[in-house]
Amino acid sequence: MAAVVPSASGQAQKPNEANDVQLSQIHAATEAPEKAPGPFLPVNRRVGFAIVGLGRLSLNQILPAFATSDYCKPVALVSGDRPKALKIAAQYGIAVSHITDYAGFEKLKEMSGVDVIYIVLPNGMHYEFVLRAAKIGKHILCEKPMANSTAQCEEMIAACQRGNVKLMIAYRQQYEPMNRALEKAVREGKLGKLRSIVASNSQNEGDPTQWRLNKQLAGGGALPDVGIYCLNASRFLSGEEPNEVIATLVQPKDDPRFKEVEARCEVIARFPSGMTATFTSGYDVHRSAFLRLEGTDGFAEVDPAFGYHGSKLRFTKLMDGKDTELHPAIEEKDQFALEMDHMAVCVLQNQQPRTGGEEGLQDQRIIEAIYRSAREGRLTSIEAPAGATRLGILPPLE
Amino acid sequence: MAAVVPSASGQAQKPNEANDVQLSQIHAATEAPEKAPGPFLPVNRRVGFAIVGLGRLSLNQILPAFATSDYCKPVALVSGDRPKALKIAAQYGIAVSHITDYAGFEKLKEMSGVDVIYIVLPNGMHYEFVLRAAKIGKHILCEKPMANSTAQCEEMIAACQRGNVKLMIAYRQQYEPMNRALEKAVREGKLGKLRSIVASNSQNEGDPTQWRLNKQLAGGGALPDVGIYCLNASRFLSGEEPNEVIATLVQPKDDPRFKEVEARCEVIARFPSGMTATFTSGYDVHRSAFLRLEGTDGFAEVDPAFGYHGSKLRFTKLMDGKDTELHPAIEEKDQFALEMDHMAVCVLQNQQPRTGGEEGLQDQRIIEAIYRSAREGRLTSIEAPAGATRLGILPPLE
Amino acid sequence: MAAVVPSASGQAQKPNEANDVQLSQIHAATEAPEKAPGPFLPVNRRVGFAIVGLGRLSLNQILPAFATSDYCKPVALVSGDRPKALKIAAQYGIAVSHITDYAGFEKLKEMSGVDVIYIVLPNGMHYEFVLRAAKIGKHILCEKPMANSTAQCEEMIAACQRGNVKLMIAYRQQYEPMNRALEKAVREGKLGKLRSIVASNSQNEGDPTQWRLNKQLAGGGALPDVGIYCLNASRFLSGEEPNEVIATLVQPKDDPRFKEVEARCEVIARFPSGMTATFTSGYDVHRSAFLRLEGTDGFAEVDPAFGYHGSKLRFTKLMDGKDTELHPAIEEKDQFALEMDHMAVCVLQNQQPRTGGEEGLQDQRIIEAIYRSAREGRLTSIEAPAGATRLGILPPLE
Amino acid sequence: MAAVVPSASGQAQKPNEANDVQLSQIHAATEAPEKAPGPFLPVNRRVGFAIVGLGRLSLNQILPAFATSDYCKPVALVSGDRPKALKIAAQYGIAVSHITDYAGFEKLKEMSGVDVIYIVLPNGMHYEFVLRAAKIGKHILCEKPMANSTAQCEEMIAACQRGNVKLMIAYRQQYEPMNRALEKAVREGKLGKLRSIVASNSQNEGDPTQWRLNKQLAGGGALPDVGIYCLNASRFLSGEEPNEVIATLVQPKDDPRFKEVEARCEVIARFPSGMTATFTSGYDVHRSAFLRLEGTDGFAEVDPAFGYHGSKLRFTKLMDGKDTELHPAIEEKDQFALEMDHMAVCVLQNQQPRTGGEEGLQDQRIIEAIYRSAREGRLTSIEAPAGATRLGILPPLE
Repeated sequence: MAAVVPSASGQAQKPNEANDVQLSQIHAATEAPEKAPGPFLPVNRRVGFAIVGLGRLSLNQILPAFATSDYCKPVALVSGDRPKALKIAAQYGIAVSHITDYAGFEKLKEMSGVDVIYIVLPNGMHYEFVLRAAKIGKHILCEKPMANSTAQCEEMIAACQRGNVKLMIAYRQQYEPMNRALEKAVREGKLGKLRSIVASNSQNEGDPTQWRLNKQLAGGGALPDVGIYCLNASRFLSGEEPNEVIATLVQPKDDPRFKEVEARCEVIARFPSGMTATFTSGYDVHRSAFLRLEGTDGFAEVDPAFGYHGSKLRFTKLMDGKDTELHPAIEEKDQFALEMDHMAVCVLQNQQPRTGGEEGLQDQRIIEAIYRSAREGRLTSIEAPAGATRLGILPPLE
Repeated sequence: MAAVVPSASGQAQKPNEANDVQLSQIHAATEAPEKAPGPFLPVNRRVGFAIVGLGRLSLNQILPAFATSDYCKPVALVSGDRPKALKIAAQYGIAVSHITDYAGFEKLKEMSGVDVIYIVLPNGMHYEFVLRAAKIGKHILCEKPMANSTAQCEEMIAACQRGNVKLMIAYRQQYEPMNRALEKAVREGKLGKLRSIVASNSQNEGDPTQWRLNKQLAGGGALPDVGIYCLNASRFLSGEEPNEVIATLVQPKDDPRFKEVEARCEVIARFPSGMTATFTSGYDVHRSAFLRLEGTDGFAEVDPAFGYHGSKLRFTKLMDGKDTELHPAIEEKDQFALEMDHMAVCVLQNQQPRTGGEEGLQDQRIIEAIYRSAREGRLTSIEAPAGATRLGILPPLE
Repeated sequence: MAAVVPSASGQAQKPNEANDVQLSQIHAATEAPEKAPGPFLPVNRRVGFAIVGLGRLSLNQILPAFATSDYCKPVALVSGDRPKALKIAAQYGIAVSHITDYAGFEKLKEMSGVDVIYIVLPNGMHYEFVLRAAKIGKHILCEKPMANSTAQCEEMIAACQRGNVKLMIAYRQQYEPMNRALEKAVREGKLGKLRSIVASNSQNEGDPTQWRLNKQLAGGGALPDVGIYCLNASRFLSGEEPNEVIATLVQPKDDPRFKEVEARCEVIARFPSGMTATFTSGYDVHRSAFLRLEGTDGFAEVDPAFGYHGSKLRFTKLMDGKDTELHPAIEEKDQFALEMDHMAVCVLQNQQPRTGGEEGLQDQRIIEAIYRSAREGRLTSIEAPAGATRLGILPPLE
Repeated sequence: MAAVVPSASGQAQKPNEANDVQLSQIHAATEAPEKAPGPFLPVNRRVGFAIVGLGRLSLNQILPAFATSDYCKPVALVSGDRPKALKIAAQYGIAVSHITDYAGFEKLKEMSGVDVIYIVLPNGMHYEFVLRAAKIGKHILCEKPMANSTAQCEEMIAACQRGNVKLMIAYRQQYEPMNRALEKAVREGKLGKLRSIVASNSQNEGDPTQWRLNKQLAGGGALPDVGIYCLNASRFLSGEEPNEVIATLVQPKDDPRFKEVEARCEVIARFPSGMTATFTSGYDVHRSAFLRLEGTDGFAEVDPAFGYHGSKLRFTKLMDGKDTELHPAIEEKDQFALEMDHMAVCVLQNQQPRTGGEEGLQDQRIIEAIYRSAREGRLTSIEAPAGATRLGILPPLE
């Protein structure tokens, strides 16, 4: 791993490398400017990640994302399916010596080059494996939702503090280019005062035996898996924390997929400023995902939203006396690469990640309040977090 | 007025005129077919409307809409501002003899050519004027929301039955081309089973002295004025009636506009099939209005929605293995003209209007449940209507 | 007809009526402003139009457009099909006394209320009927293309001058709201310097016996009927006149539709500033119509373009370092109503129409050069017009 | 390099690897199916590329593309700027021993792991370096345009045949997902018969000293650099070869950028079937790039088109009696990775690349005819290619 002088404070920045190449601008000034890629780290200086769990998220999103990351490389795999792990290791050039099963998880401690452990297991297993990772002194990137209860979240945070390791929750959307542009626009008042956020994140599950439909493994149904994107977006984009929620659940009795978890969850969240967030999430609905921010002076919409690819962002506001839609050409980047690069930079520069354990804990607090509200059919208060749950905003990508 | 034989039953159809002109198709069969306009009625055979109230809705939408209606003409005006009424009468060629003030409302009874009275007054005045209109035996088209209470709505229905006059509530969106196409698509299962409707209808009010912000005149704030579009759309598009609601209100203490009525209202409505509708409406938000219907097999969105012009409809569903957006080129038509033409056809053919008093009453029942839920912070049941609240769906326009 | 004092000079403005009604703005200043309709003229003061020819353009577009015009009414019909004319007259409330056939065209002279004669005949008949209309001293609105030859166009202009009647060519797109906004944007340099216009206007003809496929009646094929929109748009939007063209025609030998006229025409037109216009038009292509203006600093596109309804306008240019699409919400208005209102205002105020005979003549000059170029397979020069062919730009509609 | 049995015939397919992982479908059948990535080759089995030229295309597009390629890796660099090459080599993990300058180009012969030489030099240098590469027996991927003259192209083809090396011209758009879907749709008659292709590809150059504005280095101006995309698209999407062109050039005398090459080029190309392609390209126009295919039954448009990212594809055709726009969600893939992977598969399986030298030669023939036509101001014939210039279509990506 690169020797990097830890920076004293402030937000994690890209490592300042000597080997970046400057490009002259050959196009007219009215054309979008062009910038050389990088600086990024050559493979031998990258931060090494162990991937724990080889489900579809690891296979289809996370492992391919290393190719376009600037600072990361996959160096170890943890899986219960050794033949699969061997295949994957071969594809990605990971040494056979760096494969282990869950029982042998602690071997990661001694494996060369493992800087970060990325937990990509079913939600119900995050708690155990974050604790085990902290114990062997490795930095941790943990998939969302953080865990199945606030108690678990709090223990996970404490364990990482004790172990003196960084803990980041993998809220990929907070690192994604359009959300970053949107967050900046909101902060700069481009929409006036934010009044209402409306969102939906749904998909139609098939196989009733998958772990996402098992309460112990998943912690819940649509809400913690897909609804959490709406919830988290309402928090980080507004910069506020909700103080009350009111919610309903739908769990059809006759559908074999929903014996244990909700099919749908609808939420109204109230924020101290008077802003509200209204969102739905579903497991029995064709893929539909959008996010609309309504302010006094205009609105913004990401539609489709929350997906791995293909998000589109537009603004609507009055220009020259006409309501005008603006579609900025923001280039798509792999969100997992951006998220992992953020973690890598934090490791390289000894910074705290933007979305640490407190960010995951706070979502879990609200999720519990949502379930309570739905169960009781009443407006439910949410305990305020002790302090800020995340660090300041990330600038838009150039 | 035209002598038309009342049809015995079924849905109101366009009068079957002898004078329509057929056009041959000169374009290739792969081009959208072309159809001659009409048949429509010449001015001297049209159904005559008295317009009660000369506010901006009458001036900007309703009176101009007569020009593109097929069966209607404006023949009388009721206004408290006689100079304004004289100007408007001159513009539209209405006889000075056919202008009266509110005190003289009953003069409409004897005015020649008045077949329908269109009540375009502040919400709080609908009750009184529907009763007065019924008493003088005129058919009534009444703006939404129907009245300020279910008790008033019930009295209005009874009065119209006693008076043997037709009562139609002016739910223009139920007559609008895109909603008609959407309603048909839902009925035909184009989206699979409907699971979730998400909508927003908001605008940013300015003048704090306008009647819309006066509780007695408006009956409420954003909910009955703009939120009602979301509510009514969730009912007529799904064909279901909600049985529970849970809702919140925002009424900022320090905003002079919201001394009496809510600035915003967020609602979750639950339907017997398990479908939910989640919607927000606001009076302190930049104009933002959309309607999304999420089904098991796809979703549809109208965005912008609910406005007088410029609605756009799209569907998203799987085609050839790819999620595909479909944007059918549905021609915009004046919704007020379509709505008034529906009333005219009902009068000409002695039919019941699709959106009679029961449709308005049911929205009012739900509005009252919403306010109760928000006040009490709890899930609230809604009494089921005695029967169907509206007649069968209108076919899409060709 | 209204007594209106002719204005001495300048561009035709809406008649300044006393009876307009002012509306206060009730919405916040960040919302699109609202304006009352009008002032427009009551029916008894409107400019009367005789419609010559009852083909599909008259039936489907022009006659319905009177309903939304501000200053016009239909008062007479000229048709060779008296039963059809009687039906149409009944629909529009036109007196039976105001119907005549082509032989009786000159009866229009004595018919009460006929101020303008709108020639909606096959192209090849424009020449004869403009001459006859000028002879009886009536103002003339003539459909595009003006005639089948420049010689005819010149005679038509001379005849109208001799007859002291106004002649306007019905270039509806020059009166249409999006084109007006676009023309203003170009003049203000919003796209930088205009470099290139690219356009297409095509449709797929079916019936091979229709007059549009008859050379004598149509004057040509796709070029004068639909290609003329691209040509005319390149001229009025740029404000320049082309000095050279190079073109090709496609006329398939084995297609019964194209025995006399071209199926397709492709044109490159060069303008003195270095700007070029490149466009295609077709009669054997599914409806496809767009118009793109490319400048040094951005581009604008209308797509679909040239149609009666549904045009959409967008701009693309650099904003905040990103290429950004802007879609202003410009409300659609009936183009025929706008065009006829322009003529009516010119009559009422004794102004010259923006698109007089010289505008039509210049298009015809270029069309002849295009045909010559295609025939000879070489770059062909175009004679410059003697002066400006049209009056200054129309301001965007509010 | 992997030992792969050459396949006897047919189109290059992905290597059939043993190590691909199957994923079960967990979503409902109405959702877009999900597929695991790969199979792809681990780094140590990949085809090695030497990159010749470290300009912005290499730095910003080609070198980053290796990360998402399935079968390729960069193993050598050729550059005249050794410090820059050292920096880049460090970034990409290329051995210092595998860097050379142009004089030392032939050292590539002995460098381990160099399977393919990718020529990314100014156009005017392609000829020399393809010949040199062929001489040392390496497979060649050469950027477009192939060379500055047909004579050079023919020599290049002959040299590669003599050297028994594969030659591929880097027409990245032929490997790009949306074009592949479009090509398939055209072949299947989804648009009916293709009648007209309209396209534009323009950008606004700044620096007048860049090689693209130097005739000897660039071979021409906008036409061979950006116009070639329109030209090539019209050929591969239609599957036809043009037999006549007519064209114009714009080369402003007073613009320092265009002392040697054209600023703009407009072309009409005629094809034997009666189809036409009309396109423009510019170097003095804000970035504007689209491609529209007009058929008898519908049209398709890619807009923006031809860029590295952000292309969007839509179809318009009649569905249920309405013209309907369809936007399929086709996932963007790196075009350079796809193009290089195609070359790699051809090398691994001893296949011929889809876009070999004949494809580049034919574009060059047409470019020369275009310049001749513009110079002479007349329709110009094009010699037909001896046979097919490219291999059969590539299937759409899943």
